[in-house]
Amino acid sequence: MTDVLVAALRAIVGDDHCLTDPPLRASYETDWTRRFHGNALAVVRPGSASEVARVLVACADAGVGVVSQGGNTGLVGGSVPRGGEVVLSLLRMNVIGDLDRTAGEVTVGAGATLAAVQAAAQAAGWEVGVDLGARDSATIGGMMATNAGGVNVVRHGPMRARLLGFEAVRVDGAIIRRLPGMPKDNTGYDLGGLLAGSEGTLAVITKVRLRLVPRLRYRTVCVIGFADAASAVAAASELRRGLASVLALELFTDAGLDLIMRHASVAAPFTARTPVYLLVEVAAGEADPTDGLLEALEALAVDDSSVAVAADAAGRHRLWQLRERHTEVMNAEGVPHKLDVSVPAARYAELVERAHAAVTAADSTARTIVYGHVGDGNLHINVLGPAPEDEATDDAVLELVLELGGSVSAEHGIGVAKVGWLVRDRGAETVAAMRAIKAAWDPAGILNPGVLFED
Amino acid sequence: MTDVLVAALRAIVGDDHCLTDPPLRASYETDWTRRFHGNALAVVRPGSASEVARVLVACADAGVGVVSQGGNTGLVGGSVPRGGEVVLSLLRMNVIGDLDRTAGEVTVGAGATLAAVQAAAQAAGWEVGVDLGARDSATIGGMMATNAGGVNVVRHGPMRARLLGFEAVRVDGAIIRRLPGMPKDNTGYDLGGLLAGSEGTLAVITKVRLRLVPRLRYRTVCVIGFADAASAVAAASELRRGLASVLALELFTDAGLDLIMRHASVAAPFTARTPVYLLVEVAAGEADPTDGLLEALEALAVDDSSVAVAADAAGRHRLWQLRERHTEVMNAEGVPHKLDVSVPAARYAELVERAHAAVTAADSTARTIVYGHVGDGNLHINVLGPAPEDEATDDAVLELVLELGGSVSAEHGIGVAKVGWLVRDRGAETVAAMRAIKAAWDPAGILNPGVLFED
Repeated sequence: MTDVLVAALRAIVGDDHCLTDPPLRASYETDWTRRFHGNALAVVRPGSASEVARVLVACADAGVGVVSQGGNTGLVGGSVPRGGEVVLSLLRMNVIGDLDRTAGEVTVGAGATLAAVQAAAQAAGWEVGVDLGARDSATIGGMMATNAGGVNVVRHGPMRARLLGFEAVRVDGAIIRRLPGMPKDNTGYDLGGLLAGSEGTLAVITKVRLRLVPRLRYRTVCVIGFADAASAVAAASELRRGLASVLALELFTDAGLDLIMRHASVAAPFTARTPVYLLVEVAAGEADPTDGLLEALEALAVDDSSVAVAADAAGRHRLWQLRERHTEVMNAEGVPHKLDVSVPAARYAELVERAHAAVTAADSTARTIVYGHVGDGNLHINVLGPAPEDEATDDAVLELVLELGGSVSAEHGIGVAKVGWLVRDRGAETVAAMRAIKAAWDPAGILNPGVLFED
Repeated sequence: MTDVLVAALRAIVGDDHCLTDPPLRASYETDWTRRFHGNALAVVRPGSASEVARVLVACADAGVGVVSQGGNTGLVGGSVPRGGEVVLSLLRMNVIGDLDRTAGEVTVGAGATLAAVQAAAQAAGWEVGVDLGARDSATIGGMMATNAGGVNVVRHGPMRARLLGFEAVRVDGAIIRRLPGMPKDNTGYDLGGLLAGSEGTLAVITKVRLRLVPRLRYRTVCVIGFADAASAVAAASELRRGLASVLALELFTDAGLDLIMRHASVAAPFTARTPVYLLVEVAAGEADPTDGLLEALEALAVDDSSVAVAADAAGRHRLWQLRERHTEVMNAEGVPHKLDVSVPAARYAELVERAHAAVTAADSTARTIVYGHVGDGNLHINVLGPAPEDEATDDAVLELVLELGGSVSAEHGIGVAKVGWLVRDRGAETVAAMRAIKAAWDPAGILNPGVLFED
């Protein structure tokens, strides 16, 4: 039976693009974290939406699951097989076209990397408006399917907010398409927005049209030290309200700074050491936003000895490293448990302050390093110490997040890693409403089985 | 049978809030345009989500349709009965609460008017970020259910973009809720975003939490004259790319200006008369954006004799009247056919130029006045002359829009007015995908029957 399917897949995409040899399949079967792995029946790399349609129909007919995969940079196991599925790699569908320089719009194949789209946009005087560390590997299709966020959500929103149009293939091979797409388009349900964040469980996104954002010439970054999380969060809110130019609002702690200084050889932003730090980036197209930022800092009465401001590229880069290199230095200390959560703005400081106590209640020797996007209520909680498979501290953190009315996934998604938490997070009625959509669109459960919902 | 239902409804909401007398029902049965009218079995005005749930269950048990209604300001007949349904008025559920001044968030009952929410937001130093002419009547629930747009979409997006959290009631009485909600929250399908724009066909929105936008202190408005639509559209794109401070980009024509001067006694913006005008509003929180605007105008090489700029409140108001009073002066000339459409940015100028020819091909004596939100590709095409029930010119315009790859509804929605156009606009596959969701959530078709989909 599976031989028949593989032969059919070969006929659809060609022998070169239907990989069955284990060594060729390997890189598609293990995720970036090396935590999630499963054998694929085959890896297929279609070159067009109609090939995708034929692959889906063949798999559905055979009753074999399909796992869509872009750059495979996800952190929750949503894009690698659980065992026996066909991996549908979109990497060949990477054309960047129809760039409208006047309107600031571009149509992008699902397999194009974020970095490639950023380069194309910048060459035309625009920006994508979404940025994240995995930019060289993460693909636009995967980023849309997971509604990726990153550091500029506070200004531009997540991937869903950039979506003007889309092309996607349903499990029955039907191609649904709204290209080029329009910013105002109230004609029935927002299917593009629904697919964004559906993690490959409803349809395979093959193309998207993005609304770009104006390129912002003037940028200034500052890092400010605070005595506690509450003061940092209050300042972040004040800056977001007072400065329309805010592009990023990031938080980290002295424990993180300590690792950065030790492992990454980056200098502290200023001599004084404080428990919590806020990194603020402001950006504007027409006039330098630095004066506005400095006035706002004055209004916040922050101490001169705990502020660093940089308007030049090198200085901005240096300050950003204090935040961006957290991931890397965390890995240098061990294999961290990485929890990506969000809470309502009013509870953010409390989460920062209470995370470590929650962790140590579950494992008294564990270390906790937190950092995140305070402007979006998103905190990344890293736990060092517990063995990779020991979930006690993960559970403790997620329990705390639910107690604070938060979400167990801010930007990474549910994947397979958090399926056990979805009902607890969203409630049985809401998950039943989601499952009704899944059942209506994919009754046999062919698309990304095991992702989002528990069996 | 219906007597039993009405008795059940009275028991749920109380006699005072179950209206069956024709004079009491009347205002709920005819829409704002007076074009759509139908008799309701009863009008119920529940006071809580649990009352809404019980009303829905009672109606579903009786097999009677439910039409949700907010301020009844829609223009496509989506909120008045077709005949025999129960009208579910959300007007009593108008509490504005949990306003977080620090984060800029507020929870609003579906029945609160936009004006009331704007006042509450402004009192706290924030703004809603959405504005439209019907602000004193239009309710937040109705605006979310129709994903209302307005003049600031180019900067802040439509209602869906403001949605942080929601509470809604499904037809089986299940209450789904994500309150307060978080900007980054990738935990399953974006049900709030799906309900936004679903026009009451999937569930009844009872509460939303909105993410407010920073209040922008400095505002400047200018009107620029152009020789043709293409130049105006190109300038609008250039301004959107060059000025992050753009808050509105509106277009109107000399035919519209003529009516404004005649009926509304508003003075022309400048002595010269040009075929097309662009109204630009820029706004910023930290510094006056006027200089940036003037530099941008210089770069566009616009003629000094066809530019008017106003930074003071009275001057801004005067210039805005040139655009805002179009609706009113149109009505003074007769009963216009109002077509709300959008096209991809690259085709906008072509639509402006070709609309009148398309209209006169269908009715040689008809007049065409266009104006709209050029920044979003949204054009309002008003046709004067044809009798209200004569749809030949409507059809001609919508045919042209489809030829240009556009949408038959930009911000008003499909309602009952455009159900015949949905498949032609979106394609059979896409509408089938929408219908699958409708069938999954409302299998008996109780919620807003006749809206969105043809029977």
